[in-house]
Amino acid sequence: MGDRTGNRPSSRRSDGELALLRRIRARTGKAAGAGVRLGIGDDCALLKARAGEELAVTTDLSIDGRHFRLDWHPPEAVGHRALARGLSDLAAMGARPVAAFLSLGLSPELVQNIKAQSASKAWVERFYDGLLALAEKYKTPLAGGDLAQSPVVAADVVLIGAVRQGHALLRSGAQSGDRLYVTGKLGGAAAGLAQLARLAAAGSAKRTVSGSGLRIPGKLAAALEPHLHPQPRIAQGLWLARHGAATAAIDISDGLSTDLHHLCEESGVTAAVDAASLPIAPYAALDQALHGGEDYELLFTAAPGASIPRAIAGVPVTQIGRILRRRAGRPAITLLTGRGAQPLAPRGWEHFSWLSKPR
Amino acid sequence: MGDRTGNRPSSRRSDGELALLRRIRARTGKAAGAGVRLGIGDDCALLKARAGEELAVTTDLSIDGRHFRLDWHPPEAVGHRALARGLSDLAAMGARPVAAFLSLGLSPELVQNIKAQSASKAWVERFYDGLLALAEKYKTPLAGGDLAQSPVVAADVVLIGAVRQGHALLRSGAQSGDRLYVTGKLGGAAAGLAQLARLAAAGSAKRTVSGSGLRIPGKLAAALEPHLHPQPRIAQGLWLARHGAATAAIDISDGLSTDLHHLCEESGVTAAVDAASLPIAPYAALDQALHGGEDYELLFTAAPGASIPRAIAGVPVTQIGRILRRRAGRPAITLLTGRGAQPLAPRGWEHFSWLSKPR
Repeated sequence: MGDRTGNRPSSRRSDGELALLRRIRARTGKAAGAGVRLGIGDDCALLKARAGEELAVTTDLSIDGRHFRLDWHPPEAVGHRALARGLSDLAAMGARPVAAFLSLGLSPELVQNIKAQSASKAWVERFYDGLLALAEKYKTPLAGGDLAQSPVVAADVVLIGAVRQGHALLRSGAQSGDRLYVTGKLGGAAAGLAQLARLAAAGSAKRTVSGSGLRIPGKLAAALEPHLHPQPRIAQGLWLARHGAATAAIDISDGLSTDLHHLCEESGVTAAVDAASLPIAPYAALDQALHGGEDYELLFTAAPGASIPRAIAGVPVTQIGRILRRRAGRPAITLLTGRGAQPLAPRGWEHFSWLSKPR
Repeated sequence: MGDRTGNRPSSRRSDGELALLRRIRARTGKAAGAGVRLGIGDDCALLKARAGEELAVTTDLSIDGRHFRLDWHPPEAVGHRALARGLSDLAAMGARPVAAFLSLGLSPELVQNIKAQSASKAWVERFYDGLLALAEKYKTPLAGGDLAQSPVVAADVVLIGAVRQGHALLRSGAQSGDRLYVTGKLGGAAAGLAQLARLAAAGSAKRTVSGSGLRIPGKLAAALEPHLHPQPRIAQGLWLARHGAATAAIDISDGLSTDLHHLCEESGVTAAVDAASLPIAPYAALDQALHGGEDYELLFTAAPGASIPRAIAGVPVTQIGRILRRRAGRPAITLLTGRGAQPLAPRGWEHFSWLSKPR
């Protein structure tokens, strides 16, 4: 990131660092979209506001050892995932992306990596490759940020989006009788992460240069894809907001069980989920579909009479349950299986807590 | 920060943590301003956009050992300073604050500190005390953020402001012949930091509980004030933008010499600074006024005919030099002293690089 837009150097830059900053600035300049009047190069970025729109803002902090691991994840995937989290929050509000901002803390090793300017691409450049590829796909210019040396690699991504006034999808609008839907498939990200953990544990995976993550065998690429490169459901969120089709929405970042609890809590309702109807991802198990985080699919509700298509912009939409009136003494959310109804507790996946490195 | 607005838990929360989050949410709810339609509690915050305005956005990352030290700085000052950096960027654009967002990485020790719920206030509560007191002073609601456990304490602050379309103060508008002005006094923050370093080195300062910073003797409070509690020049920036009085502006975060270089570079001009006219802060030396960072005063230019008052909203404004045409072979910026003209190199203070702890 730049040395400007709130991007002051935290120490004097080496020639290698300055060259990197210039390259990043050139790349982000190209990505500038219609909503950005002034990007990197001043005290603040300037974004255009359209009459009749509201701004949606979200921030997501990704930290080595908590949300990713330098020794496991390819740098491109770290960049992709850091941005995908925020884009998914915009999708869940039905907002179109306007701009992204990145505050990046780099460890002394990675700064040294830049200074060395070796033949192999620096970690940070590969990180930007992944982040900017996703940003371009969703027409989201990187308009600023901050850069600092840090004992731990950390990326804080801010997403700013716009949505027509009063049309944002909220968590709080679900009503008894509504149908419960989900986009795409569930559990794929958790299954992919489990696969990545097995790869690391096996020790059979060859390490590339330090901090470049595990070398991923071609035959595992498909299984790891939902974890390494989740796709935010921007088009689907925009469709729902434009058609006023959803009464409430949230993205599945912590796992279906936990995010459904959030939605029900904010709406003052409860829900019943039909286990047989769940669109379980290939390679995934039921538990991963119920509690696995980071699928970044949209979970939404719609009135019984609403016309919800089977797919939106090429992504399938599946009805997985119903919204019910909350009653004292009844479990908050139930899972309906062939063996009857059982409580569905919020066992949302604990972000990488089991993945943490001893320090 | 919340468990919502892009604020997902990074691991399951303890009762102590949940109680803290509830307290923070309650406090930030009270601070909600006119520009925030939806704060903490959904996938994104929603901000109102006014017709004819542009949004100014800036992010600033503050890291233990780089921008502050847990063993030196009182937690309230860490929170105050983290927010002041971003507010100052808004001031430099002539923008009014609309909302702030905070992504906070807390070390395991500080999380433990919360869980213990001891009689003494947790570090993070004192951090919020400082941050929210400044936020309230400048009517800036904290509308969201993220919270995660991190090996190092880090705070990324995002500020969103609004400015009438086409009225933002940019770095790029200075012209040959313009006068150069600065608000307030210079060098006070650097002098205060040097004092804090002496206090730490002397070892005479009694340590309070771990991570609470040095105990600051009452007689040093005034000298440390500009470093611990810098004041963003929001009212002064708004005045300049409203009156169309400035041709260019920047805030002094890296030091006069470096920030003046930024302004001149973006405007394609050079400048001469009159040493005798510099408003040097009490306790500060000329070198600290020229190169000391973090004063967060505004440095701006105005046409020769412009009417610039001696003070804006109670803060003095001083003319310190002139903008000149850039000529090949002439030093970029000159300092005029009793002994003649000399080049003024950008020796902007290297943020805390000399302050870094060995790790």
